[in-house]
Parts: sequence; structure tokens; C-alpha cells
Amino acid sequence: MSVLIVGSTALDSIKTPIAENLRLLGGSASYGAVAASFFSPVKMVGVVGEDFPKKFINFYKKHNIDIEGLQIQKGKTFHWVGEYEINMNSRRTISTELGVFENFNPILPPSYKDSSYVVLANISPSLQCNVLDQIKKPKFVAADTMDLWLNIALEELLRLLKRVDLFVLNDSEAKILTKEDNVIKAIKGIHKLGPKYVIVKKGEHGSILSSNNGLFIAPAYPLERVIDPTGAGDSFLGALMGYLASKNGNPISHIRKAIIYGSIVASFCCEGFGLSRLTKINRNLIDERFNRIKKMCLF
Amino acid sequence: MSVLIVGSTALDSIKTPIAENLRLLGGSASYGAVAASFFSPVKMVGVVGEDFPKKFINFYKKHNIDIEGLQIQKGKTFHWVGEYEINMNSRRTISTELGVFENFNPILPPSYKDSSYVVLANISPSLQCNVLDQIKKPKFVAADTMDLWLNIALEELLRLLKRVDLFVLNDSEAKILTKEDNVIKAIKGIHKLGPKYVIVKKGEHGSILSSNNGLFIAPAYPLERVIDPTGAGDSFLGALMGYLASKNGNPISHIRKAIIYGSIVASFCCEGFGLSRLTKINRNLIDERFNRIKKMCLF
Repeated sequence: MSVLIVGSTALDSIKTPIAENLRLLGGSASYGAVAASFFSPVKMVGVVGEDFPKKFINFYKKHNIDIEGLQIQKGKTFHWVGEYEINMNSRRTISTELGVFENFNPILPPSYKDSSYVVLANISPSLQCNVLDQIKKPKFVAADTMDLWLNIALEELLRLLKRVDLFVLNDSEAKILTKEDNVIKAIKGIHKLGPKYVIVKKGEHGSILSSNNGLFIAPAYPLERVIDPTGAGDSFLGALMGYLASKNGNPISHIRKAIIYGSIVASFCCEGFGLSRLTKINRNLIDERFNRIKKMCLF
Repeated sequence: MSVLIVGSTALDSIKTPIAENLRLLGGSASYGAVAASFFSPVKMVGVVGEDFPKKFINFYKKHNIDIEGLQIQKGKTFHWVGEYEINMNSRRTISTELGVFENFNPILPPSYKDSSYVVLANISPSLQCNVLDQIKKPKFVAADTMDLWLNIALEELLRLLKRVDLFVLNDSEAKILTKEDNVIKAIKGIHKLGPKYVIVKKGEHGSILSSNNGLFIAPAYPLERVIDPTGAGDSFLGALMGYLASKNGNPISHIRKAIIYGSIVASFCCEGFGLSRLTKINRNLIDERFNRIKKMCLF
């Protein structure tokens, strides 16, 4: 089955303690789509400006991403400028130029409307709802978010949560959303808001899934060197959903492996600036890491 | 096989956001010994003052801890006063009265000298070396430490590390010791200092073992409520070594399970003030959690 992904499509200028790179391909939809493409066909929804480099269009095509839903509009592409601190754990936004993204009105091509697996990558909850409204009968809907929406669009987010199967957020966001300092308690609070599946991401410490099947404590693939963590969370969710769609069974039977695949692809993502490392891997390399981390968890 | 444990034996006054408790039984040896006692016989080495309550002596005996090596000396027992902040992750020492601990000279009773499994719980590295000197032919030696010794007794610690099989420390200590910000790189640096087995503890995020057998990513047992994390690290190492001693085989074959047992006992430790929760559990309850966490890690 194919995966539909909606999110931001952007140009990222990223500074880390090691280097600085300007106007890379970025955005939650770009990372999610490439990550999912290792497992399933992908349909992408997004918007870019007339300045969007042709090479990035070709890049999507090279990864077999269906971009019929990518609007090219008059104006500038969303441009994010950010900087990472020395330990790569904290990120600072230097500037955000929304460009054509400011008035983004996602319109799904007819061929997208019977999608089964839907990734509502990080964009405003009202846009996430808007996309969901256009899909006839989704089988499994996953949504991501960021602290910004918790602060400025909480009501819309709460409305969205009633409609999603899987909600993914990081530990600090889970604590903000539920006002609970304990992650396990926070997860219980999030279930009450709607989603049957909740994943709390903890970066290098892995993630925790909660579902009808209890908790799953998922490891992160250990890395000796992190070059740029931008997009790791988007890649995590994209790969997870790509794997689920490739199985197209009862999600409860496949979601644990899907999470491990998500964290493997996220680990590759961190090993290069922007999407550079993800363009150089394939399913075999992903499966090698999958088998290696499986051995690291046996007891 | 029995486990020999040397460390501090103290009175702890602990304040958390929830409550305050004065002059509880504490110290790295006390926690380690009780935790190990669920798996193997334990011989303890330590020192207390004349003010040490008789009930705590009886407490050790109740847990079948051999206290022939516990010296009772003129003067006061080591008294630590500490406070935890709201999220229980950061701890502040308010006062430390060393008492008889200041001139502690551990002397092993003859019956202790042919111990095979040795836990050098958190005390100064020179005392840890001193104890090791008195043991004829140890089979497996584990040492713990704290940031204080990295700062004031680094040379002694480095001498010790050449003589231990397993070194356990937390992630921030690993970074201080190796001047490496990446945990995986830090572990490699620590192996070069001597120990074949290195465990980096990450609190609620679990721990990482590195050995000839590669990495083992160990989960922590998820808790909804942490009452008091004092002694969790000491309990972790005590239970780990108690389990290894109970198997008395090649450590590489048992150390992964031993780590899981260590984190299970540490999780119970966090659920009560001081040692209070550990006095109310038994091997069955420990095994129940072991089986539960095993299910939480399958994929």
C-alpha cells in the first residue's frame, strides 16, 4: 500500500558546531517521504515557491515520490534557519520565512483521496485536519506535532487527536501537553485525548510506544557521531508508516518492528547534513542495522 | 557463590518534593548488599559509629547479610543530607558529616579473603584498591564511582580501573572522565583504561553495556511514580553482581540478564524512601517484573 504524507516542504539553512549549510532541501514532508520510500510508494502533499530548485523536484522523483500533490506557487519557498548547540540536543531557530507556506491550502488530487495510510507530519493542526477531511476512508492515521502548536493551536490539536490512530511527540512535548512530569503518566493522559497508539520520542534514548498491547520500550540505534539531527523525528515517522503500509495488516502486529525501522532510518538521517545520508542508503543497509540492533537488545 | 561488598554505610536525611525523612539507613554498601541478597549470600565491609541504631544492625541480619566486616567505631556514623528537585533528576548535597568514615580503614575478616565476586561500591578509589589488595583471587571485580572522585582522586581511580573487570558509571561521569560528549565514544575511551566490561547508566533511560560481545542496550523498568531515587545505582550494581554470583559461570553468558535484574531491583528502590521498598519485596516479585519488561522489549 502507498503512504500519503502531508507536511512542510522547505529550504533549510543549518548551522552545527561542525559546519554550516545553506538552503538544503528540508521540511517534515520531505524527510518523511524519503524515509517512507524505502518501504512503500509515497504520495506527497506540500507547497513550494517558484524559487524551489529543479534539482529538488528531481530528487523527489528519484525516490519514486508521487508529487502530484506538491503545489508550486508564486512566491518564495518556506525557509528555515536554525542552529544546533555543541551537544546537538538543543536547537535554536534563527529565522523563519514562511513564504508560500503562509497561505498553504492543501488540495488532494483525486488519486490521493482513497489513501489508507496517512502521515500528518508536523504542520499546523488545522492543516492536518483539512487534509484528513479530504480522505475517504483512511485505515491508519498518524500525526506528529511540535511545541509551537501546543502553545498557539491547542484547541485545533485536541480536535485532531480525536481523529488519529497514532500520535507521535517528544518527551518534553508530552509533558507540556499533559502537565505531567512523568512520561508514563503523560502517555496515559494522551490516550484519553483519543489516540489508541502513543509514541513518546526520547532522541538518543529511544522511544516508548503505548497501545492496547501494553508498553514497548524501543531502543535508538547507537551512533558514535551525529552530524545533523534535523529531520530525524520526521524520518522516524515516515519509515514507521512506510513499513506498516508495506505489511498492510493489523497495525498491532507490525508496529514494534515498524518503530525499530523508524529509529534505524532516523539514525542514518543524523549521520549527514539534511537529507544527504538518506540519499545514499538502501533497504539492505537498513536491514543490516535492524539485525544489528536486534542483537543489541537480546537478553 | 557469595558477593563481597565494600562501600559506605551511612545515615541519610533525604528531602524530596513530596516528603522529608531523617536518618534513614543509607550508604552505597547498604543498598548494594540488600539488593544482592535477593540472589546470593552477601558479605559486607563498612564502618559505622556508636550512634548507629541497633535496628539497622538487625535489618542487615534479617537480610542474611554477613556483617563480620562491619566495624563499629567510637564516634559518629557518616551522615548525608540531600535534597531532590521537582523532577527527581537532580540532587543537591546539603551537608556531609563524615564521622568515623573519615578514617575508614577496611580490614577484611579472614573468611572474606577468598571472595570471588567483589563489588567496590562508591567510596574513594584508594579504599577500593585497599580492599582489592586483601582479596586472594577474585573472579569478577566490579567498581562504581561518583563525580567527586573524578575531580579529587583521578589518579587513584585510573590505577583502580586497571584492576577491575566491570566499571559502572553514569553518562555524565563517563563524559567527564573521557572528555567525550558522545556516550559510545566515551565507552571506547573507558575500555582503554582497563575494564573489559563498561556499563553507562542513564537513569530512567536504562543503561548501555559494552563488552567483547558488543553493545547491549538495556531498558529501565518504566515507573509511574518515583518516590526517592537515592541508592538506585547502588541497588543496580548489587543486584547485578548478586545474580552473576548465583550463576557463577562465564560472566559474558549471564551479564545481560544480570543487568536487567539490576534495573528491576533499582526500580523497586525508587518506589520508596531509602531502603523501605526493598525490604518489602522478594525474588518472586522481582521475577514478575523481569518477565514483564522482557515482553516490553520484544520485536
